[in-house]
Amino acid sequence: MNAPAAPFHTLRWRAPDAVEVLDQRRLPLEEHYLIVDSAERMADAIRTLAVRGAPAIGCAAAYGIAVEAVRLRHAPDDAFEAGLDRAFAVLAASRPTAVNLFWALERMRAERDAVRARARAERVQHLLATAHTILADDVRANETLGRHGAGLVPDDAVVLTHCNAGALATAGHGTALGVIRSAIAEGKRVRVFADETRPVLQGARLTAWELARDGIPVTVLPDGAAGHLMATQRVDLVVVGADRIAANGDVANKIGTYGVAVLARRHGIPFYVAAPVSTFDLTLASGADIPIEQRDAGEVTGYGGVRWAPEHIGVFNPAFDVTPAELVTALVTERGVIRSPDTATIRVALATTDPASRVSR
Amino acid sequence: MNAPAAPFHTLRWRAPDAVEVLDQRRLPLEEHYLIVDSAERMADAIRTLAVRGAPAIGCAAAYGIAVEAVRLRHAPDDAFEAGLDRAFAVLAASRPTAVNLFWALERMRAERDAVRARARAERVQHLLATAHTILADDVRANETLGRHGAGLVPDDAVVLTHCNAGALATAGHGTALGVIRSAIAEGKRVRVFADETRPVLQGARLTAWELARDGIPVTVLPDGAAGHLMATQRVDLVVVGADRIAANGDVANKIGTYGVAVLARRHGIPFYVAAPVSTFDLTLASGADIPIEQRDAGEVTGYGGVRWAPEHIGVFNPAFDVTPAELVTALVTERGVIRSPDTATIRVALATTDPASRVSR
Repeated sequence: MNAPAAPFHTLRWRAPDAVEVLDQRRLPLEEHYLIVDSAERMADAIRTLAVRGAPAIGCAAAYGIAVEAVRLRHAPDDAFEAGLDRAFAVLAASRPTAVNLFWALERMRAERDAVRARARAERVQHLLATAHTILADDVRANETLGRHGAGLVPDDAVVLTHCNAGALATAGHGTALGVIRSAIAEGKRVRVFADETRPVLQGARLTAWELARDGIPVTVLPDGAAGHLMATQRVDLVVVGADRIAANGDVANKIGTYGVAVLARRHGIPFYVAAPVSTFDLTLASGADIPIEQRDAGEVTGYGGVRWAPEHIGVFNPAFDVTPAELVTALVTERGVIRSPDTATIRVALATTDPASRVSR
Repeated sequence: MNAPAAPFHTLRWRAPDAVEVLDQRRLPLEEHYLIVDSAERMADAIRTLAVRGAPAIGCAAAYGIAVEAVRLRHAPDDAFEAGLDRAFAVLAASRPTAVNLFWALERMRAERDAVRARARAERVQHLLATAHTILADDVRANETLGRHGAGLVPDDAVVLTHCNAGALATAGHGTALGVIRSAIAEGKRVRVFADETRPVLQGARLTAWELARDGIPVTVLPDGAAGHLMATQRVDLVVVGADRIAANGDVANKIGTYGVAVLARRHGIPFYVAAPVSTFDLTLASGADIPIEQRDAGEVTGYGGVRWAPEHIGVFNPAFDVTPAELVTALVTERGVIRSPDTATIRVALATTDPASRVSR
């Protein structure tokens, strides 16, 4: 970039009663913030991908509850409680795969229950404070996992990533891109190849945008070119984010991740998944149990108002796929790096309460 | 389709002095024919992908020479010969990977030399007749290889293909899609999954269009979804075309083919490559020697006038990749099916002169 870019915020509270949500559908052409002042609108923002990325979706859901509580702060008791119930339901129905959404809603529900006996203003304030905490914790978790992951990145590294697991997918810093940012902060040189990530092009639009903005060299490629890249050029490692990680280490992430992992294995390239603990779902034994969202055909038949596919055809548009744990060299979390992840190593790692994790959770 | 569609022609001679070229850049939105009346314009049509697909490029190159000969039919001898020399040069420089281009130009060059002593009108007529023969031979080769390949397709088959190796990529019938059409002609039911094939979207635009037009059920998916498809649904076989096949059976084909082949191997799905003998380049020992075309960044940063990638980024846009022979279950040619292809099996198969091959070549 020629001039230092102004900082951006994926999500930010806008006192007294709204959340600013960077509308990622318009990036990189336009930096436009939605003003979201109800749970319904937050669910819309999540459903339509104005805000996306598992950790960011978790923060957005928490703020969706908080903003609804603020909106109903003067409502009669019945209306307040019913409104919050609806808010939980509409947000839970917004997207099915990212477990951070359900994790954040669970946490908000517990906090709601914990302060039920208090005065209304205090309850509303408590829900808002919890959303702030979830957001701040996410940034800290990313910074911590970034430091853990940076140790896996050699100097002068060539890194391939898929989709966007950056500051835009989180409350800030990023997971996969957080690892890269932390490595660069340690003085390492890193060049990034970013799969464009059809159909929604989070790689070409979002990863490219946020890395270029930070002055990190980034090269975009069609998803199909990842194999040729690995076969013909040096790629030191792959790092991606995750939308849900099962108890055995199987990883649901953006469609195409599985194919990249299979290629990385063939070429002997380490394949890392960077995700905060909130992305783990230990209630699911394996990735086979992770619900995979099927999205609209229109995402595939064209883009940005241009339609290129003919009529009278079927469309297969799963938003995520599952990468089996055996293809994952290591999971990078704020609790540390989990090598050769499986049910046992994950259980041990997530049970750890080292000082860093106590700070960051 | 609701009504039977009119037939289309990838390339067709338009007497007295031009070639109609179906402009595939505008498909499926518009069925528009370019009128090509010089070698320079034919090279443009090839370079800009108005006509694409290795066998079709071969036919187009042959007609490029023929149309130039017609254009210069009344020119002085020096101008005629120099014009033909330029025509060969400009066509040879149009695209580097598809060997059919060079094969067709070699054949036209040999015919030019063979009739040098004859009268001008006869020489021009001979070059045009040779182009007609190359086109007709290509259709026959596709029909013959289609029949050979149909035996590999079970009834009620689910077939995955990548890019477009159909009637649009050839003089008619198609190679990979020719196998499917021939299987259907034998009474088998076939459903096709078509990778959209970024960046130029030949799958979403061309394969979907020509199959839907024939009433063959087709479902388009993002390239990254092929792994999830294989992991979660029945896929009986993969069949693709080729742009150049080395002596050892390594296959250069549209970018992304290699990744599909690696996934097919992981899932135990047969991976077939359908191509006429004109696609083989026995002068190259292996795929490492095949020149891979790098195309313009603009193909990746957007589509159809919509730009979605930011400025200040790199782009990696190889048009082809190489699938090693060990991942190819069989090559399907008009000389028969070559299972577990390698240097020895290919040499034997291409040396065969059975009655079918004598008819079709």
